[in-house]
Amino acid sequence: MTQNLIMTLFGDPFAVMNTIGLIAFAFVGSSKAIREKFDVFGIAIVGLTMAFAGGATRDILVSRIPLALQSPIEISLGLFGVGLAIVLSAVLKSPDAHPITVIADAIGLAAFTTTGAIVAAETGVSVFGVIAIATINAVGGGAFADILLDRSPFILFDDFYASCAVLGGCAFFITDAIGVSGSTAAGACALVTIITRLAAVTYDWDLPTLQGVFK
Amino acid sequence: MTQNLIMTLFGDPFAVMNTIGLIAFAFVGSSKAIREKFDVFGIAIVGLTMAFAGGATRDILVSRIPLALQSPIEISLGLFGVGLAIVLSAVLKSPDAHPITVIADAIGLAAFTTTGAIVAAETGVSVFGVIAIATINAVGGGAFADILLDRSPFILFDDFYASCAVLGGCAFFITDAIGVSGSTAAGACALVTIITRLAAVTYDWDLPTLQGVFK
Amino acid sequence: MTQNLIMTLFGDPFAVMNTIGLIAFAFVGSSKAIREKFDVFGIAIVGLTMAFAGGATRDILVSRIPLALQSPIEISLGLFGVGLAIVLSAVLKSPDAHPITVIADAIGLAAFTTTGAIVAAETGVSVFGVIAIATINAVGGGAFADILLDRSPFILFDDFYASCAVLGGCAFFITDAIGVSGSTAAGACALVTIITRLAAVTYDWDLPTLQGVFK
Repeated sequence: MTQNLIMTLFGDPFAVMNTIGLIAFAFVGSSKAIREKFDVFGIAIVGLTMAFAGGATRDILVSRIPLALQSPIEISLGLFGVGLAIVLSAVLKSPDAHPITVIADAIGLAAFTTTGAIVAAETGVSVFGVIAIATINAVGGGAFADILLDRSPFILFDDFYASCAVLGGCAFFITDAIGVSGSTAAGACALVTIITRLAAVTYDWDLPTLQGVFK
Repeated sequence: MTQNLIMTLFGDPFAVMNTIGLIAFAFVGSSKAIREKFDVFGIAIVGLTMAFAGGATRDILVSRIPLALQSPIEISLGLFGVGLAIVLSAVLKSPDAHPITVIADAIGLAAFTTTGAIVAAETGVSVFGVIAIATINAVGGGAFADILLDRSPFILFDDFYASCAVLGGCAFFITDAIGVSGSTAAGACALVTIITRLAAVTYDWDLPTLQGVFK
Repeated sequence: MTQNLIMTLFGDPFAVMNTIGLIAFAFVGSSKAIREKFDVFGIAIVGLTMAFAGGATRDILVSRIPLALQSPIEISLGLFGVGLAIVLSAVLKSPDAHPITVIADAIGLAAFTTTGAIVAAETGVSVFGVIAIATINAVGGGAFADILLDRSPFILFDDFYASCAVLGGCAFFITDAIGVSGSTAAGACALVTIITRLAAVTYDWDLPTLQGVFK
């Protein structure tokens, strides 16, 4: 088990990014559920949904059985993130708005954009397919979590959330097309996603609405 | 047709549980839609969604074409449940809160937890995979129905609903691991699920919220 | 590219209907998002969701990788529809309620009912399977779009929307069973769907609610 964990942590780019993403998103999802005063079961469900829904959707789209259902280590990583959120909620005020959570969310977004791009590239879908699967993998969990929380998916209102995943997916495709090693493409994807996301949060970037453009 | 029905009713554990679950959940889903004053088409859609969405999600997760789309008998069982709800709605006040509906819901929950566990065990996923697929099969239909009814999925607020499916899935895994016959494991799963569910409803069990624990 | 487009436009019934449906539904979905004052990214997401979610669900149900992720032309057609909506929103008042949008929606509904029926018939599912997949392909996109817009899927309240797809699916199955050519069955399906839909909108058809029947 510990050995598996070590292998996972220092294995291929997919395993590393997947591990980081699962813990980060399970933590963020659970923090949202805690804010909504869900019971412990609801907290675990929302956390695991945010951690696994994006990847499961990715696996379903490329018609394979979701990884999360096959490897026991995946679920333990998710539960670890849920546990972190519960522990921190005891010490932090409004854990879901805390900088730690905002940063964890950006990290998860970058990690899952990368895992999505890696899987899609292996499946041999179109350019759009790679970017779409990377984006769905990255934002799908948050969207499902919001539906469980009965809110309109925030990804539609936070202009530079899904956009960052799209940019990261493009970065992956371009570096990959140039023919550099998979790890380099993965790194470029993760970097572009997290940097644009953190910049968007810091400088509060906005995309125009048509009402702003035409009226 | 009648012959098929008899075969289905007295066939393997999967067929028995599947038949019971489809009728029970179609009945419960339609009763909810009637309460919301949906038209007859909406009533049928919500009923069939509650009956089939969980199993379809299960089949998609193990990458196979949903049973409901392949066997004509499945849909007739679902429509039978919808019909029951429509007939009873003429004689009962608030059919969706009536004891008959509460019990039908517990029966459907137990039946679908079992069918999910049986299918998952055949697919050879991890322990978590078996419990997750059993739970998704059991609560997926109700969650989809609630989204169609534009409500936050009740499974997140009713503490001992999905929890009962999780316990039933554990019971299946343990009895199955001991090496007893499939039918025994199926029976154990169904019993644990329905007993915990009915007990939870009767004694109004609750899980603690973190606000209750920490504040 | 232009060549591909021409081939798509004058190819087999599936390609023709698919092209029409993608542009029409992307246009309708984007118009809804513009009405809700979403930013340009949100407008594109809702438009593409309405255009692709139904077909992706269809492909997932028959366990194959969604077409939209494999062919670059699919996405360009969707983006063309999004662009149309943005341009028209500059000249039309309330584009989402405009007759152009209502007609485009009916056209998309008919086109996707047909593509769904064609794919389902090739997969060899049951009669119900053909009608169900045709209906899901036709209304799935709109339902997903409404969930993103945080509204209860209108298909449950607009009595003759999904019903038209069901009727179109039946028309396809009957003509197909008679043994006429695929193109004829496709044409019959599309005609029945669009005529019933436009008639329902024009004459404001309604299905009874049980409250109307029993009370």
